[in-house]
Amino acid sequence: MILFFKPLYMIIKTDGFIHHVFFWLKNPESKNDLQQLIEGLNLLSNASTIKDFHIGKPANTNRDVIDTTWSVSWLLLFDNKEDQDIYQSDPIHLKFIKDCSDLWNKVLVYDTVST
Amino acid sequence: MILFFKPLYMIIKTDGFIHHVFFWLKNPESKNDLQQLIEGLNLLSNASTIKDFHIGKPANTNRDVIDTTWSVSWLLLFDNKEDQDIYQSDPIHLKFIKDCSDLWNKVLVYDTVST
Repeated sequence: MILFFKPLYMIIKTDGFIHHVFFWLKNPESKNDLQQLIEGLNLLSNASTIKDFHIGKPANTNRDVIDTTWSVSWLLLFDNKEDQDIYQSDPIHLKFIKDCSDLWNKVLVYDTVST
Repeated sequence: MILFFKPLYMIIKTDGFIHHVFFWLKNPESKNDLQQLIEGLNLLSNASTIKDFHIGKPANTNRDVIDTTWSVSWLLLFDNKEDQDIYQSDPIHLKFIKDCSDLWNKVLVYDTVST
């Protein structure tokens, strides 16, 4: 018998590199498009320099300062900027863009390192 | 002799609540204002329901899809939405807003939970 466990925690190296991406789907009501993007991100998570990842949806919060208009968030942890640069041209990443970029009409990225 | 260690890692509970805030300083060139905001956030990190936090600045990346215009990012991990709700009205949070809100002219929040 093989058991699969979903990890309970992801780990951020505090001197690492945080890459937070937000996708706005062309058809935000389409559960099929949403599922396709999530599956694409799960495949993309195999890119070798990714330390950990989190695929998110908007939480059930609503204040003026909160942007709730996006469909999917993609939080990636890298050990350093060099690993993130390698990820950008990783064939797995290029295949994800080729396969999935028709699904969204806007993408916004925040790249963050420790102060 | 007392040794202080800065933790190397922060831990995200994958079924938890991710609260990512971006601040645009009124005076983005002021190192003093930047330092004041960072010190305020370090004090704010004592709010009891915060599981872990990361204070960031824009990484040295630049593509069309990357927003590099903000000054400080504040990534918070909570176990669940209830803990985030408690944080919003925590006296430590209210004091931070009172003491520091004059420093910024824009704040943007992304609240994320697992898909």
